[in-house]
Amino acid sequence: MRLDYPTSLKGLLQELERLPGIGPKSALRIALFLINQPKDVIDRLIQALQRVKDQLKLCIRCFNYAENKLCSICQDEQRDISLLCVVEDPMDIAVIENAGTYRGLYHVLHGVISPIEGIGPEDLRIKELIERLQVEPIKEVILALSPTSEGEATNIYIARLVKPLGIKVTQLAMGIPVGGSIDYTDQLTIMRALEGRREML
Amino acid sequence: MRLDYPTSLKGLLQELERLPGIGPKSALRIALFLINQPKDVIDRLIQALQRVKDQLKLCIRCFNYAENKLCSICQDEQRDISLLCVVEDPMDIAVIENAGTYRGLYHVLHGVISPIEGIGPEDLRIKELIERLQVEPIKEVILALSPTSEGEATNIYIARLVKPLGIKVTQLAMGIPVGGSIDYTDQLTIMRALEGRREML
Repeated sequence: MRLDYPTSLKGLLQELERLPGIGPKSALRIALFLINQPKDVIDRLIQALQRVKDQLKLCIRCFNYAENKLCSICQDEQRDISLLCVVEDPMDIAVIENAGTYRGLYHVLHGVISPIEGIGPEDLRIKELIERLQVEPIKEVILALSPTSEGEATNIYIARLVKPLGIKVTQLAMGIPVGGSIDYTDQLTIMRALEGRREML
Repeated sequence: MRLDYPTSLKGLLQELERLPGIGPKSALRIALFLINQPKDVIDRLIQALQRVKDQLKLCIRCFNYAENKLCSICQDEQRDISLLCVVEDPMDIAVIENAGTYRGLYHVLHGVISPIEGIGPEDLRIKELIERLQVEPIKEVILALSPTSEGEATNIYIARLVKPLGIKVTQLAMGIPVGGSIDYTDQLTIMRALEGRREML
């Protein structure tokens, strides 16, 4: 049921409903909120959208989000340029950075190999990764893809390309999450946690 | 926890989080969706917002949403100009119109009297309602405010002003909703339904 709203309101509802997680009711709620607020609220939203559209690009080196040619991490001269962490998308960088211990560089694949979704290695930034490894003084590539079957396949694919270059390839440890409980942990995670067990010193 | 995103992305997240029902996670999901879509998706959203901001006004006569001086209902010469339905906000008009039986005009108060929220009669379009009744050939005012204590108080306030003008004042029937069940109906509604009972012919 689409009621007889003014054209401009109908148009806004249509655009809002395209957004993920926004159905007709939330779209109406958001639209009415924006209509009933002082005009500068809608203006600020328009400007924020415009700014993201105009300014947010991908770093030409690591394909992280960037507002200049290089992202803030690639511009940072304090980073350890011998370490390269490979991630699936730019949001993963934010999560790893937030943990606060990694000081190396990144490379964003923008996806993982997924034959079902028709995503092959040529659709990802893998060629650019290999090019970087040939010119940058990188000693270790840390694979930090999600531990799914697609992530694992991508790990193996990249490892096969990188090892012949004489560069060490590692992968994030899999196991029980900190604060997780054993009885709610799935079989595969338990298997990985057992495989990766460490001697207590 | 606010991760270290580029400034423009942070700005967009901030604006999105102001919207009702949008928390940090949905804001991020929407922002990433917009970033990863072709640029015309974000453009269409910007244009829709701009259009609502520029074009959506209030009808100078009934205070419904309008894109011209008068709303589409006030412009419609087929309407019964002797009937005036008083509603709380423009969305109520859409609901009543959708029912398809009412052919009169409307008047939007933009709220109800609520001492708790500090909303008095002077904050609503009540003065404008009385002015209309003095110049328009209206024979009946139908009060269609929500049956809450604030709605009821507003009904009584308006009825006291309108009756001395020799205009009939009615109010929407209260009772069991169609398809509703008696055993899930609250006491007050049952009381109103008994008061308003009709003889079966």
